[in-house]
Amino acid sequence: MTDHTDTIPRVLGKLDDAGRATLFTDARTANTFAAMPVSDAELSSIWELAKWAPTSANVQPLRVLYVRPGQARDRLVQHMNDGNKAKTAAAPAVAVLAVDTRFHEYIPAVFPFRPEMKDFFDASEEMRTGTGTFNSALQAGYFILSIRAHGLAAGPMIGFDAAGIDAEFFPDGRWRSILVVNIGHPGPDPWRERLPRLDHQDVVRWA
Amino acid sequence: MTDHTDTIPRVLGKLDDAGRATLFTDARTANTFAAMPVSDAELSSIWELAKWAPTSANVQPLRVLYVRPGQARDRLVQHMNDGNKAKTAAAPAVAVLAVDTRFHEYIPAVFPFRPEMKDFFDASEEMRTGTGTFNSALQAGYFILSIRAHGLAAGPMIGFDAAGIDAEFFPDGRWRSILVVNIGHPGPDPWRERLPRLDHQDVVRWA
Repeated sequence: MTDHTDTIPRVLGKLDDAGRATLFTDARTANTFAAMPVSDAELSSIWELAKWAPTSANVQPLRVLYVRPGQARDRLVQHMNDGNKAKTAAAPAVAVLAVDTRFHEYIPAVFPFRPEMKDFFDASEEMRTGTGTFNSALQAGYFILSIRAHGLAAGPMIGFDAAGIDAEFFPDGRWRSILVVNIGHPGPDPWRERLPRLDHQDVVRWA
Repeated sequence: MTDHTDTIPRVLGKLDDAGRATLFTDARTANTFAAMPVSDAELSSIWELAKWAPTSANVQPLRVLYVRPGQARDRLVQHMNDGNKAKTAAAPAVAVLAVDTRFHEYIPAVFPFRPEMKDFFDASEEMRTGTGTFNSALQAGYFILSIRAHGLAAGPMIGFDAAGIDAEFFPDGRWRSILVVNIGHPGPDPWRERLPRLDHQDVVRWA
């Protein structure tokens, strides 16, 4: 594969105020969606951007099932908690984020200078689960910010019947759902008042 | 607290190419660091930006210990895996990311319309661990991108003795380390060739 490592400057750019607003400071979870559709090209591009952010040993365990309006979305909605059903039923696109419980099978391809790590993971379910759980959640964070980077609103939810979704969409048991994210353009009155963030001194310490 | 929900436009901005390069497409894990220091103001600002991205029920379990050059960094380096010692010893700042195992004590403040969730979490260690593990990793993803947003290079590592770091820096047992991140300006020859990402069809499915 081509690379351009030599051309990356050592003085790095900063994210400007518009970018900070888009991803962090102004961005909100959308509670309503406009009818405007989200294209398959946009959905593919969300993944193609998010994929570049790092994971430990490059394991990349996150998987994405995009669910579009129609029968598939109806099948998904039935597994959402009651408080989330209407939002998901109205979202022009939904991503079911999952962890590939056998992510380590790709290690010889994605971490070619230590292919033997595949066997370490194969031998330890504890190590596999810990690494898969941590890195898939890390990548879910990247994915949410990538949705926002595309000018779309994200509505991440953990209120769903994971066993139900897994049986419905991942019957072979290899992928396991970790987060459902509504994706679309904001509809009428989409934002709730922002919830408070913890005080700096409750989060940050210095040594 | 003040809010400006009413002023957020419903047509959202997109991240421009420079922003995409800074956070995703050009950004790399740095393996060397320049002598140029990282200020406490920059370190505080990394958290102040990352904190805005969402967590489930606004639980915000991630905690940050910033370790600066000197005795504290020496204490940290001894708990890093051998392959990571030199990098951490050369980093002008290091963040030890941790999960607050008693994050739920803040729920009445951060999720005021459902304060009783504090008691649900108090009653179930399984629910507490699952929610803390997932959301702290999600926030670690936001944190890494926030470092990059500040024009700094991040070097995240899971290769360390977590029990050793916890005993050294979090002796009361409440915070537990999940990731160590070197932070600084890139030094000489800082980048390795980018590792391959999984093929689109191995990650993304459609329903």
